[in-house]
Amino acid sequence: MLCRQARARYEMGGKMSNKDANSRKTNNDPAAALSRRDMVKLGATGLGAALVGGVTLPPAAGAQITTQADQIQGWSGARVLDRGLELGPAPPRRFAPPPIEHVRIGFVGVGGMGTAHVGNLTRIQGCQITAVCDLNAEHAERAAAIVQEAGFPKPTLYTRGETDYRRMCESEDLDVVYTATPWRWHVPVCLAAMENGKHALSEVPLAITIEECWEVVEAAEKHSKHCIMMENVCYGRMEMMVLNMVRQGLFGEILHAECGYLHDLRAIKFADQGEGMWRRAHAMARDGNLYPTHGLGPVAQCMNINRGDRFAYLVSMSSPSRGLQEWAREHYPEGDPKRRETYALGDVNTSMIKTVNGKTIFLSHDTNLPRPYSRINMLQGTRGIFQGYPHRLYIEGRGEPHRWEEAETYLESFEHPLWRRLQEDSEGAGHGGMDFVEDWRLIQCLRQGIPYDIDVYDSVTWSAVCEISERSVASGSTTARGSWR
Amino acid sequence: MLCRQARARYEMGGKMSNKDANSRKTNNDPAAALSRRDMVKLGATGLGAALVGGVTLPPAAGAQITTQADQIQGWSGARVLDRGLELGPAPPRRFAPPPIEHVRIGFVGVGGMGTAHVGNLTRIQGCQITAVCDLNAEHAERAAAIVQEAGFPKPTLYTRGETDYRRMCESEDLDVVYTATPWRWHVPVCLAAMENGKHALSEVPLAITIEECWEVVEAAEKHSKHCIMMENVCYGRMEMMVLNMVRQGLFGEILHAECGYLHDLRAIKFADQGEGMWRRAHAMARDGNLYPTHGLGPVAQCMNINRGDRFAYLVSMSSPSRGLQEWAREHYPEGDPKRRETYALGDVNTSMIKTVNGKTIFLSHDTNLPRPYSRINMLQGTRGIFQGYPHRLYIEGRGEPHRWEEAETYLESFEHPLWRRLQEDSEGAGHGGMDFVEDWRLIQCLRQGIPYDIDVYDSVTWSAVCEISERSVASGSTTARGSWR
Repeated sequence: MLCRQARARYEMGGKMSNKDANSRKTNNDPAAALSRRDMVKLGATGLGAALVGGVTLPPAAGAQITTQADQIQGWSGARVLDRGLELGPAPPRRFAPPPIEHVRIGFVGVGGMGTAHVGNLTRIQGCQITAVCDLNAEHAERAAAIVQEAGFPKPTLYTRGETDYRRMCESEDLDVVYTATPWRWHVPVCLAAMENGKHALSEVPLAITIEECWEVVEAAEKHSKHCIMMENVCYGRMEMMVLNMVRQGLFGEILHAECGYLHDLRAIKFADQGEGMWRRAHAMARDGNLYPTHGLGPVAQCMNINRGDRFAYLVSMSSPSRGLQEWAREHYPEGDPKRRETYALGDVNTSMIKTVNGKTIFLSHDTNLPRPYSRINMLQGTRGIFQGYPHRLYIEGRGEPHRWEEAETYLESFEHPLWRRLQEDSEGAGHGGMDFVEDWRLIQCLRQGIPYDIDVYDSVTWSAVCEISERSVASGSTTARGSWR
Repeated sequence: MLCRQARARYEMGGKMSNKDANSRKTNNDPAAALSRRDMVKLGATGLGAALVGGVTLPPAAGAQITTQADQIQGWSGARVLDRGLELGPAPPRRFAPPPIEHVRIGFVGVGGMGTAHVGNLTRIQGCQITAVCDLNAEHAERAAAIVQEAGFPKPTLYTRGETDYRRMCESEDLDVVYTATPWRWHVPVCLAAMENGKHALSEVPLAITIEECWEVVEAAEKHSKHCIMMENVCYGRMEMMVLNMVRQGLFGEILHAECGYLHDLRAIKFADQGEGMWRRAHAMARDGNLYPTHGLGPVAQCMNINRGDRFAYLVSMSSPSRGLQEWAREHYPEGDPKRRETYALGDVNTSMIKTVNGKTIFLSHDTNLPRPYSRINMLQGTRGIFQGYPHRLYIEGRGEPHRWEEAETYLESFEHPLWRRLQEDSEGAGHGGMDFVEDWRLIQCLRQGIPYDIDVYDSVTWSAVCEISERSVASGSTTARGSWR
C-alpha cells in the first residue's frame, strides 16, 4: 500500500505549508504563532512531523510523547454550550474561511449515498447544486432531476469518464466540491477541488493510505481550503446527546471507548451494481480495518482527540477470512469467476488505540459475516457509561445502582441543541436523519464562516486507521503509529 | 512479577513429567505415546516447551506455530452429544483417575464463595466435607454448621493460621482439597494437596504468575492428580446452551469471540471484610487483566482451545487508573490512609488474543468504574453470532435477516443436557445456579472416573492471561506469548 517515493517527498518537503499556517496568525491564538510543522511536533494535529520508517517504536517513545502532550494541555477545553450550536470542544482558532452567502456545490458521484446528499441539499437554505459529475450519465440525470424538482435550474452535468471531475473543477464556478465516489477517488477529487480554489468535502473514509492523508493536508494548507470528511455518524441523535452529556461532565473524565462498524455487507459487496462494483475488491487486497470512521469519529470527538489529546499508537488483529468465500460458494454456480476470488480481509478485524493521555479505544470492523448491525458506541468515564445497541446508560448517582437505564429517557434533558433546533426548523420537511443534520450543519458553517466540527486533521486522523491497522495486522499485531507521530 | 531463578528451573528441569505422561499410554490415543514435553511441542497443552526470555517474537514465528498446529488438527473433534453429559469437545485421552465412590473433601477458605460451595456440596450425593480450614475460626465454624445441618458429622477444623492447610493436607484422609482462599493462596494450597496425594480444586484464577502455572502442571503430572480451576461461568445456563449449539454446528466455524469481566467492584475492594482485605492490594501492584477466566473460559471451550487450537499471543492495553482513587477521596475523610493509596491497575484493561489457527478473542477487565455488570460473552462464527447482556443471537436462515432473536427462545431446543438433567434431578432442591451445576458436575466426574471438563492445562492457559497481559501492558502493548509457546 505504501509508495516510498511519495513518503520521501513528504519527509523532505512541505515547506509550503508554513506560509498558510503563518497567514492564520492571530493575537489570541496560542497556536497561531507556530507553523503547522511546529504544531505537529506539539501534537496539535493527527499527522506527525515526519512519517516514521517502520511500524514499531520502542516503548520508551510513549513517555516522550506524553511529555510533548503535556505542553498542549492548555488547549483542551470543554465546549461552551451557550456559545450556540457549535459542535465539539472549544478549539484553538480553527480554520474558517470567509462566509459564503449562497453555497454553490458541485457534486461528484451520485450513486446511493451521493443521491441521498443531493436530496438533502435541495432542502437546505442557502445552497445550490450547480454541477453534477458521474461516470454513469443516468445517475447524473437522476440527480439533476432531483435538483430541478426542488425548483433549481438544471445543474451542468459532467459524464465523460472517471476523471471528468477535473474538468468540472477547472471550468465551474463552485464554492465546494462534494464527493461520494468509490473510496479510491475521494482524495483525487478533493485535490482537484482544492487546486482549483474550491473547498473539498468527501464521504468516508477520506483517505485509505497515509500518503493520501498527507496529500490532502498539504493541499488544504497550501490552498487555504476546507478538506472535510463528512462523517454522518457524528451527527447521529444518540451520538450527539452523548457528546452533549460528555461536555456537561455527566460521564466524568472519559477513559475508554469501544466502537466499530459491524454490518453484514456480503450481499452489498457481491451486488452487480453500486458498491458491489468496487467494494469487494478492497477485501481482496487489504486486511485491516477498512472502514473505521463511523465508529471512531463520534468517540474521538467525545475524547477530545486533536483538541488536547491525540492517538499515540494502535495494535490490530484479524480473524480468518471465510465469509465472502462461503457466500460465493453458496450463491454462484460452479465455474463462476466469483467463486475463484480470494480475499485478504479477515472477517473480524479488531484494533486497540492508545492515546497520548493514556486513554484507550477498542475498534471493530466486521462486515463479512451474518450478524445484526452495530457500531457498539460505548463510552466510559469516571462517573458513568453509555453503550449502544441497544442504547443504554448508567450515571453514578442516578437510577438504580448497577442497572442500565434506557438512553432514550435522557433525550428530554440532554438532546443536543442542534437536534432540538432542527426538529423545530424542519417541520413539514420530515424529521431528518443524521445525514440531513450533517449536511444542514455543513451549510450553516459555510454560510456563517465558522469552523466546521471536523477539520482536515480530524479527517485524516480517523482515516489513517485504515493503513495503520493494515500495517499492524501484516506485522503480527505489533504496535503501529506511522501517521500519528 | 517474574522470578528468573524459577523460570530457569522450569527451562532446565521437568524430567519427572515424562514418567506420568508415559504411564498414561493407551493404544487408541495418538497422544499417549508422547511425553508431556513432546506434547507441549506439538501444541497440545497451554504451556510451551520452554518459556521464552522476552515478550516479543518476530512475526515470522507465527507461521512456524501454525505449522506445528497443523500436526494436531486430527485431535480436534466435535463433542458427541449422545455420549451423555460430557462437556466439551472430544479430547484425546485426558486425565481421569480411578472412580471415587464417596468423595471426601477438605475445604480451604470459607469466606463468601467458599461458603457457597460448602452449601452446594452438602446437597450433592456422593460427597462429604470432612475437614474445613480457615484463618477465621468463626467462618470455619459457620461452614461446619452448614455441613452438620445437612446431616453430616462435624468436619475437623483447621484454624491455626494461614498455613494450617498444610497440616490438613498432611493429616487428613481426603480425596480432594477445594480452595476458595484469596488468590495468592490458590497455588500453595493446590501444591500441598497434590503433594499429599489429594486432588486439587481451586477457585479462579488458579494462578497469577507463569511460574505458578508451571508449578501446578509439574505437580499434577508428578503426582497423577487433578489440579482443576473451578470456573463456574463455564456452567452458566446460557454459556452451556451456546456450547451445545456450537457443537451442533449452528454457528458454523467459530472465528471470533469477545468476553470479559466488567463489574463495578469498588465497594467490594474497599470493604473492611471479605475481598476488601486483599483484592485491592492487587490493584495497587498490578496493571493488566487480573481476572480473565470468567470471560475467557466459556469461549475458550467453544473455540476448542487446547483441543485442536491454542492461544498464540496476546496484546494488552490499559486505560488510566482513576476509579479507586476517586472512590477513596469520596468515601474516606482527609487523613485516612486509604486516600494515600496509589493504584497501578488501569480502570479498563483490554486485550486481544490470537490463536494458532488464526481465530481472535477480545478480552476486557473493567472493575474500578461505575457500570452495570457484564461478561460480554460474544461468540461469532460463519453461520451466526451470540451476544450476551442482553442475551441474543442470530443464526443465518432463522428469524428475520439482520435482526437479533432473544436467546431465551432457543432454550427449548438447545438447553444443554446437563442443565436439562439437573432441572429434573433437583426438584425441591431449587433450580440450582451455575455454581451448583459446576459442583454437581465435578462430583459426577470424580465418582465416575471420567475426565473433568477443565483440566490443569486449561486452568493454566486461561490463568496465564494475568501475567501475559501485565507484561504486554508494561512493554507498551507489544505482543506477549510467554507462556503459550
